[in-house]
Amino acid sequence: MTADELSFWGWGYSEKFPDEAERRELASRMEGMLGFPERPMLSPPALSDVSIPESSLSVPAHLDDVVSTATEDRIRHTYGKGYRDIVRGFHGDFDSAPDAVAEPDCEDDIEDVLAWASEERIAVVPYGGGTSVVGGIECDPDGDGDGFAGVVSLDVRELDAVLEVDDHSRSARIQAGTLGPEINEQLAEYDLQLRHYPQSYEFSTLGGWIATRAGGHFATVYTHIDEFVENVRMVTPSGPMETRRLPASGAGPDPNRLVCGSEGTLGVITEAWMQVQPRPSYRARATVHFDEFEAAVDATRAIVQARLYPANCRLLDRNEAMLNEVAMDGSHVLVLGFESVDHPVDPDLERALDLSRDHGGSVSGDPSFEGPHRDSEADAGGDDRDDEEGDWRSAFFEAPYTFNALVSLGVIVDTFETAVTWDQFPRLHEEITTQVMDTMNEECGTGFLSCRFTHVYPDGPAPYYTLLAPADVGNELEQWREIKATASDVIEEYGGTITHHHAVGRVHRDWYEEETPGEFREALRAAKESMDPEGIMNPGALLPAEQHQS
Amino acid sequence: MTADELSFWGWGYSEKFPDEAERRELASRMEGMLGFPERPMLSPPALSDVSIPESSLSVPAHLDDVVSTATEDRIRHTYGKGYRDIVRGFHGDFDSAPDAVAEPDCEDDIEDVLAWASEERIAVVPYGGGTSVVGGIECDPDGDGDGFAGVVSLDVRELDAVLEVDDHSRSARIQAGTLGPEINEQLAEYDLQLRHYPQSYEFSTLGGWIATRAGGHFATVYTHIDEFVENVRMVTPSGPMETRRLPASGAGPDPNRLVCGSEGTLGVITEAWMQVQPRPSYRARATVHFDEFEAAVDATRAIVQARLYPANCRLLDRNEAMLNEVAMDGSHVLVLGFESVDHPVDPDLERALDLSRDHGGSVSGDPSFEGPHRDSEADAGGDDRDDEEGDWRSAFFEAPYTFNALVSLGVIVDTFETAVTWDQFPRLHEEITTQVMDTMNEECGTGFLSCRFTHVYPDGPAPYYTLLAPADVGNELEQWREIKATASDVIEEYGGTITHHHAVGRVHRDWYEEETPGEFREALRAAKESMDPEGIMNPGALLPAEQHQS
Repeated sequence: MTADELSFWGWGYSEKFPDEAERRELASRMEGMLGFPERPMLSPPALSDVSIPESSLSVPAHLDDVVSTATEDRIRHTYGKGYRDIVRGFHGDFDSAPDAVAEPDCEDDIEDVLAWASEERIAVVPYGGGTSVVGGIECDPDGDGDGFAGVVSLDVRELDAVLEVDDHSRSARIQAGTLGPEINEQLAEYDLQLRHYPQSYEFSTLGGWIATRAGGHFATVYTHIDEFVENVRMVTPSGPMETRRLPASGAGPDPNRLVCGSEGTLGVITEAWMQVQPRPSYRARATVHFDEFEAAVDATRAIVQARLYPANCRLLDRNEAMLNEVAMDGSHVLVLGFESVDHPVDPDLERALDLSRDHGGSVSGDPSFEGPHRDSEADAGGDDRDDEEGDWRSAFFEAPYTFNALVSLGVIVDTFETAVTWDQFPRLHEEITTQVMDTMNEECGTGFLSCRFTHVYPDGPAPYYTLLAPADVGNELEQWREIKATASDVIEEYGGTITHHHAVGRVHRDWYEEETPGEFREALRAAKESMDPEGIMNPGALLPAEQHQS
Repeated sequence: MTADELSFWGWGYSEKFPDEAERRELASRMEGMLGFPERPMLSPPALSDVSIPESSLSVPAHLDDVVSTATEDRIRHTYGKGYRDIVRGFHGDFDSAPDAVAEPDCEDDIEDVLAWASEERIAVVPYGGGTSVVGGIECDPDGDGDGFAGVVSLDVRELDAVLEVDDHSRSARIQAGTLGPEINEQLAEYDLQLRHYPQSYEFSTLGGWIATRAGGHFATVYTHIDEFVENVRMVTPSGPMETRRLPASGAGPDPNRLVCGSEGTLGVITEAWMQVQPRPSYRARATVHFDEFEAAVDATRAIVQARLYPANCRLLDRNEAMLNEVAMDGSHVLVLGFESVDHPVDPDLERALDLSRDHGGSVSGDPSFEGPHRDSEADAGGDDRDDEEGDWRSAFFEAPYTFNALVSLGVIVDTFETAVTWDQFPRLHEEITTQVMDTMNEECGTGFLSCRFTHVYPDGPAPYYTLLAPADVGNELEQWREIKATASDVIEEYGGTITHHHAVGRVHRDWYEEETPGEFREALRAAKESMDPEGIMNPGALLPAEQHQS
């Protein structure tokens, strides 16, 4: 992957942007299936047409090799990949481009950049894969400078190596800028994997996952990247810090847990020892259809409370099933998958299917069982499957590309997610459905909302919503803001968290403030001040930017 | 349980202190089995013989109902239950008694006490069950006052109710002062349990478990109390704070994880929503004997890396097996237990036994399987079992009583524990064995050391050591300090953590400082300062006491 193969304004590879015929087909689907009014067909911008403000920074000579002020570098580090980002990118608006981009290939360079930035009071925005959907890597979006001399995007992707593997303890020391596929490629020679697959997998980095507490492959138990962190190394403006590599500890509040979720506000994560795993040898999978959503929810709850530990336990409501073409008959679909490196998981799946049937589910087709001593699919590893789960999984990684196309068709498209206890879920879900639909109707005349569970816990699910609405092009960010605010308000009012795994960034900050106790945020601010006395690290993400005191 | 039934100087109920004949038998065992020189038989102190310094505090009128300066209250809140504590208590040394004891029965009272203490700069030591083994509840042991006007022990045991149960989400809102058995008694009417059984279970509290990140029932996955915390409420000197009740979140660093392990230094934990569980219906258990410790370790590693999730996976080395009379033939014993509320766990045990056999283990007797549809033991629930595991479990809860008796026989007895990655375990274990034995030989002429794994992770075990040595009565704390320092130094030098679940307190603080990055401790100190501006909360635990600025 080279930078110029990537879209400068949207998700992923440029060449994957669909041609007009494909987009026309997508528009017809929106019009036919969802009843949207006729959609326009807008052309994506050309890089050469984009102009950005001049950089406010002059790079000192000793950082010449590390820091660039080249226009294209700055454009490419302006935004994450949320709807708001793609819309602005698509319209060629890169006004909030950083003033410079640092691409250090070692910690010394990072220390030098932070020293310069502390000295000159330059905001530093750590940048991994650039896939934030919450404004996590975009500093000073309002252009008012927040009292900073400028903004440097600090891109860590040159730190892209697996440095050590301890096969005995099943762990590996991995640099923070390593992309998902690069991690697994480098671990492959040891027959190991990280087994963490967020939807951004292809383009996001280990450091980004840790900084944002990414949600991964496993629907239960090992849901967040946090669970795999043995230690972490971070360069703060006060110096580098490294936690002790341990399988577990009870010595005071867990230092790793302060770094997980710090969203670049404390320092730049440079590497971590992570738990890794062999590729699973055994799998068992099935899909279950339900007529009623409530029954499907109850079945899911029964499975997770039985502590069967499915790797995959994704409940798609009928809209989600339809949108992803997993079921077109109006049924809700529960996709179940078990895996093990060591032993058959058939009994676990069988039991989960029993529990599903107890709640009125009907199993679709035959369950699939794989293992090293079985004839079928012995070596396929299950990555190229043509069953419903396989369809859904490939749709999972391709979905962000659809965002690009939908923006070009004047469609508002976004996802939001939360976690809530089971007792509060029905009310929250009902209010989200009603109020978000109402807002879309008001703002856009119509809209579409679907729900799936990405992760589940014995005490509650992590529901994930996708919304689509026809935009009034040119006005779409105002419309989106209303819809997003409604969703976020409802989540806070009815007991959810503003984010289960998308992070807080700048977009969720107001609701984060409602959700967390002031005493905790104050303590976090104090902790930040001790690591980052000048307040240069990702100001405005997670916590409000501090006004400069001098 | 009433206070006067409890020993004021040692573990548990006074009446359980063994009579002279029993203690003579224990002494013979030490002399015969371990080759210790003839042991003295010392008499425990009488409460009436104990004198303590006068209280330096006068309680303001508005706190008369909450705060006591009565001598017996103060004596009973002086120490935890570590060896160092029991020795001092046994010798009638209660010089570091707190100046007063607060027993609030509501948060308002706690706020009042903290306001008084902040105003007068009085150190406040939150007290749950008083079972700390690391000096966690003993302020100012050196008697120099650390610049405080006095010390109040703040006992939360009046907050002892299960306030709400949400059976649907399998969670309960529980007050912090509720003792282990009280929690399960109150949950029993909902057919639920917390299923967290630290060795201190009978006398320790939920708040204490959360404050110290207690290790519990489950050997895998749900090892620490942290995993069960949905939210927590804590009264800090800056005011009460409550985190949002959630099954999970990705919004910034987890606020619950700052409270877990805070050891009373940030505030007084008052209640928490906790995940709870029905009593398991299915169990499968077996014990496996090994000739070689290395092989037993490899088998244990194979089982946990196979992600079989045993509830119990305790490897006892031959000394531990002998000491607990689980195996007298010199074999190392792996005690395996699986449990489920929902489905048979026989295949999991069978697979674990296969893996054990692959590593040279021999299964002792027939494995035991229980379930609701089986004839045998159907309703016993497995709590009164006469198999090896049952023996070991009842020994587990009785063991602390033996501490009392051993102290009266002039025997140094202590336990220490750690966690370490598998690659580093053999070297760490060898160095601990050699160096701790060397120090016991030097200090005491001889000694005995045994090891078990209490919890295991895919990337490493949590080894737990028990040591015994003949004391030079009167000089035993100096001897103990040398031995403890050796053990702690080796742990830090060879990659372990100073504590997997005993906490840091004051005893482990020097090694905690070596283990954690200075930047993190500085951040923690800053966070503390924002919640506890006067530095009154448990000064000297976890972090050094701050010298008063005024």
